[in-house]
Amino acid sequence: MEHEKWVRKALYSATQSLGFHYTPKDEIRRRILLLRAGMEKSGIEAALINQKMDFFYFTGTTQNGHLFIPVEGEPLLLIRRERERALIETPLETVADIKSMRDLQRRVRQHQEKIPETLGLELDVLPVKDYFKYQDLFPEAKIMDIAGVIRDLRKIKSPFEAGLMRKAGEIGQQVYREARTFLKSGMSEIEFAGLMEATAKRYGHEGLLRVRDINYEAYTWHVLGGPNGGIVSQSDSPMGGLGLSPAFPVGASLRPMRAREPILVDFGICYHGYQIDETRMFSIGKMPDKFFDAYKACVEIHDAVLEETRPGMDCEHIFRKTVKMAKKLGYSDSFLGPAGLQTRFVGHGVGLELGELPYLAQGHSYPLEQGMTFAVEPKIVFPGEGSVGIENTVWVTGDGYEVLTPLEQVILEV
Amino acid sequence: MEHEKWVRKALYSATQSLGFHYTPKDEIRRRILLLRAGMEKSGIEAALINQKMDFFYFTGTTQNGHLFIPVEGEPLLLIRRERERALIETPLETVADIKSMRDLQRRVRQHQEKIPETLGLELDVLPVKDYFKYQDLFPEAKIMDIAGVIRDLRKIKSPFEAGLMRKAGEIGQQVYREARTFLKSGMSEIEFAGLMEATAKRYGHEGLLRVRDINYEAYTWHVLGGPNGGIVSQSDSPMGGLGLSPAFPVGASLRPMRAREPILVDFGICYHGYQIDETRMFSIGKMPDKFFDAYKACVEIHDAVLEETRPGMDCEHIFRKTVKMAKKLGYSDSFLGPAGLQTRFVGHGVGLELGELPYLAQGHSYPLEQGMTFAVEPKIVFPGEGSVGIENTVWVTGDGYEVLTPLEQVILEV
Repeated sequence: MEHEKWVRKALYSATQSLGFHYTPKDEIRRRILLLRAGMEKSGIEAALINQKMDFFYFTGTTQNGHLFIPVEGEPLLLIRRERERALIETPLETVADIKSMRDLQRRVRQHQEKIPETLGLELDVLPVKDYFKYQDLFPEAKIMDIAGVIRDLRKIKSPFEAGLMRKAGEIGQQVYREARTFLKSGMSEIEFAGLMEATAKRYGHEGLLRVRDINYEAYTWHVLGGPNGGIVSQSDSPMGGLGLSPAFPVGASLRPMRAREPILVDFGICYHGYQIDETRMFSIGKMPDKFFDAYKACVEIHDAVLEETRPGMDCEHIFRKTVKMAKKLGYSDSFLGPAGLQTRFVGHGVGLELGELPYLAQGHSYPLEQGMTFAVEPKIVFPGEGSVGIENTVWVTGDGYEVLTPLEQVILEV
Repeated sequence: MEHEKWVRKALYSATQSLGFHYTPKDEIRRRILLLRAGMEKSGIEAALINQKMDFFYFTGTTQNGHLFIPVEGEPLLLIRRERERALIETPLETVADIKSMRDLQRRVRQHQEKIPETLGLELDVLPVKDYFKYQDLFPEAKIMDIAGVIRDLRKIKSPFEAGLMRKAGEIGQQVYREARTFLKSGMSEIEFAGLMEATAKRYGHEGLLRVRDINYEAYTWHVLGGPNGGIVSQSDSPMGGLGLSPAFPVGASLRPMRAREPILVDFGICYHGYQIDETRMFSIGKMPDKFFDAYKACVEIHDAVLEETRPGMDCEHIFRKTVKMAKKLGYSDSFLGPAGLQTRFVGHGVGLELGELPYLAQGHSYPLEQGMTFAVEPKIVFPGEGSVGIENTVWVTGDGYEVLTPLEQVILEV
């Protein structure tokens, strides 16, 4: 077919000249092996994976489809649209075309003579109406939640994954550096954010920051100048900003930025699906000492977290330590939000989605493990005045960590 | 409290100088009245609304919360974060603070002595794990799906809503016009898209195009040059483009655009939560006649749809008419996608989300109604060569329509 021929040609050329990377076969094989081990432990006999990032993780493609994985036997990739791209992108070998949910049912039943007694679906995100549909298609199976098993695997990043995040970190470095050349007094927060995004896109940033939640929206344009940095909004974040309207009441606004006010920029980059998260302070001329001192406190807390970053260290313990440090430094009422509205985390996992495990947070008492990636983001907020902070993303190594966001830790003053 | 004072001040100033609009009280009252009528018809005694855009529609705020609406009695707004902004943004009067799902349960039970026998939740998007939680909190209620009732209300846009969409259309016009000044041969699709986005943001475009689906992602950077316009990908769309990686295999790519190739730009704008959808062709120098002729066919089909646009006309009928026209014009194998991969819609509703009712599509036999807003987008796709098309968003009036995207219907040649 005409279209197939051209897809092959376009993807070949994208691989050669536009830097497309595909998930290696070994990587997919290892992930599926580990998933099966997790399924066995949880008593799940087969998984049917559909959520976009889980699906990508186990197949290497984000074409529209499902992945059926029995604990024993071949995985079956079911593609709805578009087959030709999926075939090029995935190293999986058993691929079926489907056009409807009935097709899916038929193909799975052909593949697996006896439908397993337990079927794992991603119940943390699967809509109820789809759940009823799957119950209808496979009435003999008891549906179980496989999200926890997957979440647990995805928290550990392979060198391949860390490599993509490292590249995202390099793009971030470029973007922050170039941003210094176009930041001007009187420019609105959103104009500045838009230009940063345009710069990031030029280097291959994918624009969407994916999250695993129907109501939580991540966005890159978190540029908060002066008093807007002191405003909390809907999200569980130290500061929300003013935003553009009641329909989008977070992040950058149309307010012009002024000289000497702190300008907090929390900008995520997504490269080949993998995100890093990064915050730096900008200012037009010198910020007043109050903000500069608070910024220094954030850097001190940030560095203290990294000192504790190695396999085996307890995440909640690290969080508590930052709260204690902030108190000692005189910021107990402004650390991680204004008094009464403070958040209870100083770091969060990041990868294909924002908000993966681990959390450096209250109630998250479990050890750091080699391969985890997280962002650490101490921030200090003064209502009506502004906020300051710093944020980097790191990969936990065998005996410490690697910083994936190599940008200098300085205030970007223009 | 310090924070409250500053939020009030910031929002006052946003209203005065940054053009914040709030949903009027009458508007909210009318929507809730209509919802109640729909609930009564469907046998739903109370609704608990949480999905961000539904919540915004009935409250005027997108702060984190739930809205409890009994068929009789006062609606109860439950806010988790952030109370002060919610109070300013919503005209609703009964507002409770909650910190947890247990609080929600307690507050609803205080508000409503006897929990209704049927409780409407948005089962089309509600994750299964949350569904189980609500069952736990209100075990005496039978949970029903209220999504259809809400979807049916939201398809009709009031003059207030159309006004916000009109403003989005004006932003779109500015963006397309300015884009002519920076499009250059050799620029990558994604760089051009990034600059268009930066322009749109400068005028208040909100960046995210919301959709009601866990896996379908809308994005503004649908810039497809030459052969990339001939590639279909994961989404149910005539053309997908190459995208930036297997993790984001749609939309603009890093491929440089060349002179004389068709450059299709499908760019949505979001203003105060309301979207418009719009497509125009760019070219650097003249496109070859083949594309120009196909573009003219798209305009002809587009205009024919508008001729049929008035209350009472059947949506599927309009769709079929466009397919017939395309055939007559010699594009039966390329209209709405390459042969074998053609989509079956030529228009879709748009508002707070992309993909609302109505659809001008196969299987959608129902009449257009006054107040509906939809985008009409005839497109023609040549595999390996490129695609062309045009798209505008309209509001159905009493006896016809109003075009909400006032941009000239011309090829934007530079």
